[in-house]
Amino acid sequence: MQSQIFLEPIGHLHSQFTNKFGTPRQGALVPSSLAEFALAPEWRGRGMFQGLEGFSHVWLISYFHQNKNTRVSAKIHPPRLEGEKIGVLASRSPHRPNALGLTLARVENLDGDRLILSGVDLVDGTPILDIKPYLAEADRPEVFQTGWPAKIARSNKEVVFTQEALEQLEKISAAGKIADVQRFMNLTCEVFRLDPRPLAYRSRVNECFHVVIGEHDVHARYANDCFSVIGVTPFAAQEIP
Amino acid sequence: MQSQIFLEPIGHLHSQFTNKFGTPRQGALVPSSLAEFALAPEWRGRGMFQGLEGFSHVWLISYFHQNKNTRVSAKIHPPRLEGEKIGVLASRSPHRPNALGLTLARVENLDGDRLILSGVDLVDGTPILDIKPYLAEADRPEVFQTGWPAKIARSNKEVVFTQEALEQLEKISAAGKIADVQRFMNLTCEVFRLDPRPLAYRSRVNECFHVVIGEHDVHARYANDCFSVIGVTPFAAQEIP
Repeated sequence: MQSQIFLEPIGHLHSQFTNKFGTPRQGALVPSSLAEFALAPEWRGRGMFQGLEGFSHVWLISYFHQNKNTRVSAKIHPPRLEGEKIGVLASRSPHRPNALGLTLARVENLDGDRLILSGVDLVDGTPILDIKPYLAEADRPEVFQTGWPAKIARSNKEVVFTQEALEQLEKISAAGKIADVQRFMNLTCEVFRLDPRPLAYRSRVNECFHVVIGEHDVHARYANDCFSVIGVTPFAAQEIP
Repeated sequence: MQSQIFLEPIGHLHSQFTNKFGTPRQGALVPSSLAEFALAPEWRGRGMFQGLEGFSHVWLISYFHQNKNTRVSAKIHPPRLEGEKIGVLASRSPHRPNALGLTLARVENLDGDRLILSGVDLVDGTPILDIKPYLAEADRPEVFQTGWPAKIARSNKEVVFTQEALEQLEKISAAGKIADVQRFMNLTCEVFRLDPRPLAYRSRVNECFHVVIGEHDVHARYANDCFSVIGVTPFAAQEIP
């Protein structure tokens, strides 16, 4: 029986999610997110993606490199279940025996070795172990049933932008710091709609927090079931004292 | 940048496909196949699958342990393209930079740590690295497009059983060696319909060959676009001289 398996990434993903905090749990819920896959140097210029034209989606098998846990639990608390525990293999939690991720990403553009994707839920710098085309005949059962997640509504919070935030966005856009402001605003809405706050923070009201999206800190406040985006500033990596 | 990743299987799959030869390339095409996932001892009795009730399908991320190639090519010949080469990342070929498999299997039965699956395209003994529930919201795009495989009809050969093969099956069944003969015959049809012969053998006519399915050798002959199953005998592992 094979007991140890040794893998090397075929490349890394450059995404708009710099921090784990705010990174969505399913790529399909953030269709406005954009990411670029950078093939490792040893595979470049060899036609690895030749024939991928015509596929709308690819699977990314990734490695959750930011997991710090050295001990993996058999059970986890999915945020949506608000405290209830389930087996980790009945979930898509990143805290698994093997920290492997599976994401169906949309192919936005393919140009040689350069692959631009949308709908990606992965932190910037995530190692990618494999990319496979989406094959309906294999991956799309006609009849299917989803267990516990089908019973629980996903968070779908209202998201608004304050006048101040809109003015800041306008300035950032005029300075050429965000290529597509509408897409950036859509992504901001998608991220906050899902409620990125950890469970422990959800009882706090009127507290400000921020999520890093691309090169920017997006500041928000939560009150009355609604996220108000109150500011957008250039991302400043915080020093850990 | 993370460069080396070590993984350990969470268990192994016991399937009806003892040899690579005859093992189908997509599980969805062999719905009658049955397999059992055996969780590794260190994970047993800990509720790893608790909450999986109600899911019809799971993803298996597996390791193609029978790949003998030490050098991986950037391009491969998919059997369906009859000689044309494409990039390996535009295919589901097992001969990939990281020999990872992705299979959507149907959950037939779940009893504690025991998971019975159908529609599995993996060789007996395959190490399993991860199991994840099928989530329609993440894994099932509303709009999608399949590239090159959409243009090529899959092999869909006729399969018939000779009187002799049917008599052998009857005896095997009476002796209790096959639990469900109808299912075994369905699986045999599913396997041969896809034409399990390697490309190099396809010009040969009237030649006999056999595929191992579970505990049995299924002997067949190909002629006039049709596979005739001519015999079913207990599997005898052949000694390599």
